Amino acid sequence: MDNNAGAKGVGPLIAQSSEISRTLKQQIFEHVRGAGLCARVDISSSLQISPATVTSIINELIQAGFIHEVTTPPREGEPVRGRPPVSIAIRNDAFYVAGIKTNDKTHTAVIMDFAGNMLGSADIAHNSASRSASNILNEVNAVLQHALNASGIEHTQLSAIGLGLPGLIDCAAGKVIWSPMLDQQNIAFASLASDALGCPVYIDNDTNLVTLAELWFGKGRTVSDFAVVTIEHGIGMGLVVNHRIYRGAHGVGMELGHTKVQLDGALCRCGQRGCLEAYVADYALVREASTALNFDPSEMGDIGLVLDRLFDEAKSGHEAATTIFKRAGRYLATGLANVINLFDPSLVILSGARMQYDFLYEDEVLHEMERQTLDWQRTRPDIEVHTWGDLLWAQGAAALALSELTETLLGVSYTNQSAGAN
Amino acid sequence: MDNNAGAKGVGPLIAQSSEISRTLKQQIFEHVRGAGLCARVDISSSLQISPATVTSIINELIQAGFIHEVTTPPREGEPVRGRPPVSIAIRNDAFYVAGIKTNDKTHTAVIMDFAGNMLGSADIAHNSASRSASNILNEVNAVLQHALNASGIEHTQLSAIGLGLPGLIDCAAGKVIWSPMLDQQNIAFASLASDALGCPVYIDNDTNLVTLAELWFGKGRTVSDFAVVTIEHGIGMGLVVNHRIYRGAHGVGMELGHTKVQLDGALCRCGQRGCLEAYVADYALVREASTALNFDPSEMGDIGLVLDRLFDEAKSGHEAATTIFKRAGRYLATGLANVINLFDPSLVILSGARMQYDFLYEDEVLHEMERQTLDWQRTRPDIEVHTWGDLLWAQGAAALALSELTETLLGVSYTNQSAGAN
Repeated sequence: MDNNAGAKGVGPLIAQSSEISRTLKQQIFEHVRGAGLCARVDISSSLQISPATVTSIINELIQAGFIHEVTTPPREGEPVRGRPPVSIAIRNDAFYVAGIKTNDKTHTAVIMDFAGNMLGSADIAHNSASRSASNILNEVNAVLQHALNASGIEHTQLSAIGLGLPGLIDCAAGKVIWSPMLDQQNIAFASLASDALGCPVYIDNDTNLVTLAELWFGKGRTVSDFAVVTIEHGIGMGLVVNHRIYRGAHGVGMELGHTKVQLDGALCRCGQRGCLEAYVADYALVREASTALNFDPSEMGDIGLVLDRLFDEAKSGHEAATTIFKRAGRYLATGLANVINLFDPSLVILSGARMQYDFLYEDEVLHEMERQTLDWQRTRPDIEVHTWGDLLWAQGAAALALSELTETLLGVSYTNQSAGAN
Repeated sequence: MDNNAGAKGVGPLIAQSSEISRTLKQQIFEHVRGAGLCARVDISSSLQISPATVTSIINELIQAGFIHEVTTPPREGEPVRGRPPVSIAIRNDAFYVAGIKTNDKTHTAVIMDFAGNMLGSADIAHNSASRSASNILNEVNAVLQHALNASGIEHTQLSAIGLGLPGLIDCAAGKVIWSPMLDQQNIAFASLASDALGCPVYIDNDTNLVTLAELWFGKGRTVSDFAVVTIEHGIGMGLVVNHRIYRGAHGVGMELGHTKVQLDGALCRCGQRGCLEAYVADYALVREASTALNFDPSEMGDIGLVLDRLFDEAKSGHEAATTIFKRAGRYLATGLANVINLFDPSLVILSGARMQYDFLYEDEVLHEMERQTLDWQRTRPDIEVHTWGDLLWAQGAAALALSELTETLLGVSYTNQSAGAN
């Protein structure tokens, strides 16, 4: 038996767990933010925490300036008896954050208050070449200024910034391991960005940010376990387990696009063979279009235009164009079935720019996905298709900033450490 | 934007979360069980909970009879000054549980005290035909009696029983959706077992139980996120996320054996094509042996004997026998790489009866697994091979019983509901 030296008991030693630091105070705070406006007695009953503890923690949060009491006006026609009821709400103006999504064509920024209300947004177009961190940060600073102007908030009022990039991101370490946006690998990007933007910056994979946006503003408000599969330039995945984003032990999990669906199969841009991406991503479809339809992507310009034309050909009955989409759909079905077989989510959200091509989620694909899912009368997940744009992803980045800011603010009172960004 | 009607705030509404019911009391109790013996001050500093709250909860747990104070004797040669220090420990004799693992040849049972110490065990052999629930429960009752006799504990002293079965189990509903052990599908087995054994019974997939055993008694005491991949008659997987077993939204996730590694590939016993199991499980190897080596499994009897002979042939250089194992190893590498690409665990434990065949984890397989894992300088998980037997799996079943019993005991004081099994 593999027993830890010195440990005499049994059971998981959860003391080191980050879950432990998610204290009652955080639970109560998040509940208030989630509810918008709520009474002390509702917090106590919803969270099964004693009324005395709730009162004491609420008082602490009020003193810290994070929440405040709001007198609830009587409903129209309702008789007024005694003192009007008092509810609790987040203090909107306690802190402000920004969320920024970068991609190969556009950067998008939003400004949010402490309660998560969006105050303004902006986007700027740019050229798509991969480049240096400082170039990108200059562009990011520009879009941020536009969003600040649109919101009437000063740069100095920002307490945290969330920033989403495509690629492989170590969120906890604030490191970009690899991104198609950057001409370097393995960069301490969060720290560079914090210096450049004069404010703590938290970074994450853009797929995790769309997942966080679903968690904070979308489906996650009612569903505890769900998966988000994004189809953009590549294939991404985000997973919510028990209302929290799961990132893996080293923060680089959920690489659905690079799971193998065919041993020694089609070549992927990562250099390996048989990756799901190599059958479903846009470059895979364009590769096939150049084989059988004599499309020349370099002549046709943007990869989106090539795909649009391929899609038109398929819709008008071109056989090879149709088989290209059909095969991609079958492999996507395999990928989704693997997600369901492994993660058993109650909901799978398909998201991203490529969802405009309905072949990816037509009945035939969903039927194939069901055929490849282990059956035995299991409860099947709901499948939803969301085609929200970059603004939602930027809101996810702002939610990251709010989430990290809140953990920092609520964490310090226990450990008395200073609240730093990285 | 998909906003929930009536919800005015933002952020995840985590009130419904089962995480919330994991209160400070449970955290403190689990910490004491994990530590074996610990001081109040250590609990406070490890869990970052105020000393006053720790003292108040510890007093409550002492009054309930779950834990007690233990005077720590001075170490040899240490001078005795003032009062000897007082530690906290679980009261071993507060409750007793049993854990039982059933499989196609043997049932194994263990008896444990409330602190998780094993008091005795037993196993019985039986015939391997799939059969009725009542037949199995008679056999389970017999092995349980043997284990009780070996432990000096009466049946009436048992507070909970954990029971592991192979197959697709809905742990939360106590339902066997499908099991090779049973001649019926979709049975409320936990409830039948509770009636037959006169004690609340909790059931789970046997792979989850070996994962729980790793979590309570093995590697899980030091690692927060890990995966267990078992190779027995089929391929199973268990996942620990932040020191907790992840079962999926409907409790039927982690079906790694039925993820597809080849579209339209080899036929699986589940009836679908291209499942990982169809390339790696024992029946897949036997199928190939009967093709190229003219093995006749019906003549050779036990499937284990067929595999042993195939293994001997491969070791002595038989080319077809070697390719059978080599191909299985390559597909296993694909399955493990997919696990790493998706879950990013810090540790992968390979476990189960088939790990006696070293081709499954030889250097070549692990190298192939690394080749198929998305690289970019990521931190790679450790790989360990554990060949523990049925006794460990039964201990996992006892850990399930202890875990459910503890949640029931600690849960009731908040909600004042009666503590029922199902």
